[in-house]
Amino acid sequence: MDTNKNWKILKSEYLYREPWFTVRKECVELPNGHQIPSYYVLEYPDWVNVIAVTREKQFVFVRQYRHGLGQINFELCAGVCEKKDATPLIAAKRELMEETGYGNGIWREYMILSPNPSTHTNLTHCFLAEDVEKTNRQHLEETEDLSVHLLSFEEVKQLLYAGEIKQALMAAPLWKYAAHQLML
Amino acid sequence: MDTNKNWKILKSEYLYREPWFTVRKECVELPNGHQIPSYYVLEYPDWVNVIAVTREKQFVFVRQYRHGLGQINFELCAGVCEKKDATPLIAAKRELMEETGYGNGIWREYMILSPNPSTHTNLTHCFLAEDVEKTNRQHLEETEDLSVHLLSFEEVKQLLYAGEIKQALMAAPLWKYAAHQLML
Repeated sequence: MDTNKNWKILKSEYLYREPWFTVRKECVELPNGHQIPSYYVLEYPDWVNVIAVTREKQFVFVRQYRHGLGQINFELCAGVCEKKDATPLIAAKRELMEETGYGNGIWREYMILSPNPSTHTNLTHCFLAEDVEKTNRQHLEETEDLSVHLLSFEEVKQLLYAGEIKQALMAAPLWKYAAHQLML
Repeated sequence: MDTNKNWKILKSEYLYREPWFTVRKECVELPNGHQIPSYYVLEYPDWVNVIAVTREKQFVFVRQYRHGLGQINFELCAGVCEKKDATPLIAAKRELMEETGYGNGIWREYMILSPNPSTHTNLTHCFLAEDVEKTNRQHLEETEDLSVHLLSFEEVKQLLYAGEIKQALMAAPLWKYAAHQLML
């Protein structure tokens, strides 16, 4: 069904290859013959986030300052798949434990999203973890400064309707979850 | 409720200031005193997208190759707020008309999302446009190569459940729309 095909890469060079910032600049040719001399592609490892729900049906959220937007908002626990993480599931379990101290529970992959298919090479694996429980203390990295909040589903719905879940990679699985709950 | 405060910017410089790629590198200090010597912030203008529905309840989708992910997927019509666009609504109407030839209808802002509050300075304004109709031909730019597809709500739901709406900024408003339809 697609007449449109992939672009041809005529030239590709790395501008930056740093741990948190890897950028390729490419000269590309479109199927219609038009060339884009400078197309920028951001390379990241895959990301994870998790809708974590306790046995008491409390949702584990965090609040955290985010420097791009310059705001503090409610967020799902989220992070990066590190080299030591054999799978996205292991990365998500590690992040939830480190950031919040919650573990155990029944986990499943809930959605796979692209942060931005135009510019980003990576995917985000969104998990749903039910019946989690607090088993440890937070173990934050020096660069993490976040607080943990347990919310009822009513409170989560209020955040969704008020537009307070700003991060698209989190709003999508939360609205999917809300759609499923409303169907039941 | 927030003990965590904004970061202090100790140094800020532009690495790139190109039309499609503007990056600041900053040295920042966290409230706990920890410094991050190289934090990268991506500056973009605001973006828009639109769930466009015809009088016949057909949803206007596009398919387009996206070079970051290297895939062709179903997407909502989307674009960038240009300097000439006085408001995000005007930008969204312009993009829908250029990319698909659809116009008129009843428009409202449906969600405001952040592509990534850690790294991106901009927001995405998601619109819902009902009762749109085809009034013109497509007027694609040289760098655009996309096809227009009219889908039923059943087909949209199938795409959502199959995980074929990959772009988070589009999956979020579509799942919100699905949640609302399921509630009715």
